[in-house]
Amino acid sequence: MTKAIKPRLARGTRDFLPSDMVLRNHILNTVRKQFELFRFEQIETPAVENLETLTGKYGEEGDKLIFKILNSGDYLKKIGDKELSNYDAKSLLPEISDKALRYDLTVPFARFVVQHQNDISFPFRRYQIQPVWRADRPAKGRYREFYQCDADIIGSDSLMLEAELIDLIKRIFSDLNISITIKVNSRKLLYGFCEKQNIQNQFTEFTTILDKIDKKPWEDLNQDFIQSGFSEELIHHTKDFIDHSGSVLSMESIDVIAKKVEGSQIGTEGVKEMQEIASLVDITGNDGVVLDLSLARGLNYYTGAIIEVIANDFQIGSVCGGGRYDDLTSMFGLPDVSGIGISFGIDRIYDILKGESASSTMSSGIKVLFVNFGSDEIPYALKAVSEIRDAGITIDLYPDAHKMKKQFRYADQIGVSHVIIAGKEEMEKSIFKLKNLESGDQKDYKMDDLINHLRQ
Amino acid sequence: MTKAIKPRLARGTRDFLPSDMVLRNHILNTVRKQFELFRFEQIETPAVENLETLTGKYGEEGDKLIFKILNSGDYLKKIGDKELSNYDAKSLLPEISDKALRYDLTVPFARFVVQHQNDISFPFRRYQIQPVWRADRPAKGRYREFYQCDADIIGSDSLMLEAELIDLIKRIFSDLNISITIKVNSRKLLYGFCEKQNIQNQFTEFTTILDKIDKKPWEDLNQDFIQSGFSEELIHHTKDFIDHSGSVLSMESIDVIAKKVEGSQIGTEGVKEMQEIASLVDITGNDGVVLDLSLARGLNYYTGAIIEVIANDFQIGSVCGGGRYDDLTSMFGLPDVSGIGISFGIDRIYDILKGESASSTMSSGIKVLFVNFGSDEIPYALKAVSEIRDAGITIDLYPDAHKMKKQFRYADQIGVSHVIIAGKEEMEKSIFKLKNLESGDQKDYKMDDLINHLRQ
Repeated sequence: MTKAIKPRLARGTRDFLPSDMVLRNHILNTVRKQFELFRFEQIETPAVENLETLTGKYGEEGDKLIFKILNSGDYLKKIGDKELSNYDAKSLLPEISDKALRYDLTVPFARFVVQHQNDISFPFRRYQIQPVWRADRPAKGRYREFYQCDADIIGSDSLMLEAELIDLIKRIFSDLNISITIKVNSRKLLYGFCEKQNIQNQFTEFTTILDKIDKKPWEDLNQDFIQSGFSEELIHHTKDFIDHSGSVLSMESIDVIAKKVEGSQIGTEGVKEMQEIASLVDITGNDGVVLDLSLARGLNYYTGAIIEVIANDFQIGSVCGGGRYDDLTSMFGLPDVSGIGISFGIDRIYDILKGESASSTMSSGIKVLFVNFGSDEIPYALKAVSEIRDAGITIDLYPDAHKMKKQFRYADQIGVSHVIIAGKEEMEKSIFKLKNLESGDQKDYKMDDLINHLRQ
Repeated sequence: MTKAIKPRLARGTRDFLPSDMVLRNHILNTVRKQFELFRFEQIETPAVENLETLTGKYGEEGDKLIFKILNSGDYLKKIGDKELSNYDAKSLLPEISDKALRYDLTVPFARFVVQHQNDISFPFRRYQIQPVWRADRPAKGRYREFYQCDADIIGSDSLMLEAELIDLIKRIFSDLNISITIKVNSRKLLYGFCEKQNIQNQFTEFTTILDKIDKKPWEDLNQDFIQSGFSEELIHHTKDFIDHSGSVLSMESIDVIAKKVEGSQIGTEGVKEMQEIASLVDITGNDGVVLDLSLARGLNYYTGAIIEVIANDFQIGSVCGGGRYDDLTSMFGLPDVSGIGISFGIDRIYDILKGESASSTMSSGIKVLFVNFGSDEIPYALKAVSEIRDAGITIDLYPDAHKMKKQFRYADQIGVSHVIIAGKEEMEKSIFKLKNLESGDQKDYKMDDLINHLRQ
């Protein structure tokens, strides 16, 4: 064993203590329950993927943020006779690393769908809750290892799925007691606008700048547009276009913007689709669902409707987002499979609920500590503990015959609601003294009555 | 987007399909339920740890199997003006990597305990279910990414905890319907034997060879002993010593071997401890718990009782193992904290149950598919689907108005038990036709009756 090392976490990573886990499990169980009501099926993919599976999918910036894994063993052996000094960081990389940690759940999902296409039934409804890693600069609320929680339906272009995912979002946040606004837009409307403005060749640049609208004041965005060579006039039209946002998603709100994309075939398609989505959303309720023409979503694989969710009472960025993609699996050789997906920002939801007093709904049942009187009473205590566990009640016997005061302090610290005390006297009478730590009441019970009482 | 890449997994990793996840979740939920009845509290630690946290803890062989992560950005910048060609793989490593993937859950747990010692109450009962990574050569049943599932109690040296963990093991495998044998030994008995044989200075070498007894025939072990310089006489005594194995753990079975360690203080301590453990185990039942003096456990941090579990009807190696450690946290500067832990081999348990027809107990409730008749019926269908989900029943509306035959084939593939059919006629009467796919029966229902029927 080596000399002692100061215990510390790697930068941008976190430990979750038991109290953190109670809240995290509450969130994940809530999400999972709705996913399953919608018949999404769970899959898991490995954290480690081949580097070639991941690179080139997230843009140049994204590629830099992928954590690469050093080849195992003598990782330089590929270099062989070549001089190591011929290499810089970029040219050395392919020689010493062929694996990486996944950056999101979407690209591994695309790989999964193509690889297992004969073992799954389309439309395939999958959910996946696993961590991802990004070599981002750590900051408040931004971690290098965090969970993603995704639901996707792949293999159908039905617009009902857009409406279904909006309903799913509403249900989950309602169950979590978080008031939200669901912003909806269509990449086709944005494209239509660009086509009408004759800047469709700069569509990616345009949406990349627009995507920052939540993070920057309009003046800064204005500057970004100018620096990328967009005209003052275009900026003016853009402002005018996105100002038609904020109304509830409905046939009327979409009619208003139809003119703005008139003449663009894709834009008109976008209008038609959004009208259908609006009428479908209306069936399960469009409250809190708004049209937001400034919504662009950073990821360029989106091709149709896009969705982003903000929590109304918290300045914390989006808590959920997603959209329609028409060609995600083509990167692995399976073209023309349309899909739609959403991703829940578990860490931000956690930060929101951590501030709330939501603990009452999260209690995980009754917990009991059996006080340790010493070796004479241990057989009596161990037998009782075993029977109480058989009845499905959480209990443990304090392992050492420490002073009562210490054992009661421990009971308090670990947050049990009751302690059981059984010394010589109780043993002789085959009873157990149950003390309710909240009320202070205590009463003797036979085993059967004790279990019945604890179960209530 | 780059050109299409063949979808494939990194070596030694796996995808889990929905049908795999049903079994995995069944196993994990079974384990988790018992962990919680024993009041173990869940924690999570990050997959990525500082390299210095992990190295030097698993022996030289283990260190080689740790997956190292390349520093992000320009990972060579530390090299600076120094010639890259001055380095080989070993000397380059500290310059280009300071993080790694965890190798097990035990060392991160030790770090966690020391780092959060003021936020947790001792004895601390924690469980943790997370993946670990090892750069092992992949083989049947040996993966580079796999789950560990650990329960530990740290901060008490009470031997009750040994008995408690044995009870926990029995309950979990009983719930999983797997017949097991729990092998128990004590590192102190082994040390006592070595002291009596006057080879206590080679204790680590001795136990490392002995640990291979399940993997090698005795003749090969014999060779290993000789090659490490142990005498023929020692080998003879060892054979005699370990032959006292296989009987149920009891006062009597331990009395027999007391003589073999007589005179060794630590050996005598081991006898006393094992006697106490035997008497405690007797309280909740010692069936299937045997004394196995050949059990050594590879990890040198074990200092007292050691436990290993084998499945009686499967040649698959150990499915659970653990033991007492007296000084695990000293590597992070917190000495003299005794603990005990066990780890469940989820992947091997999965392989065992995959062969069994255990699916009946794993069913996750009723599932229904709503057939899609086309746009006229969609509002009626969507409303119904929403109400059925409100009632806690898993259902989805087939997204496209495909031919009935195709929709029924899909229903069959995804394994739903019922489909709902509602065309013009049903809409007019405000009813739903429910078809049971197993029996073929179909019947019309009003919504309330439909939900009541599905709930049964």
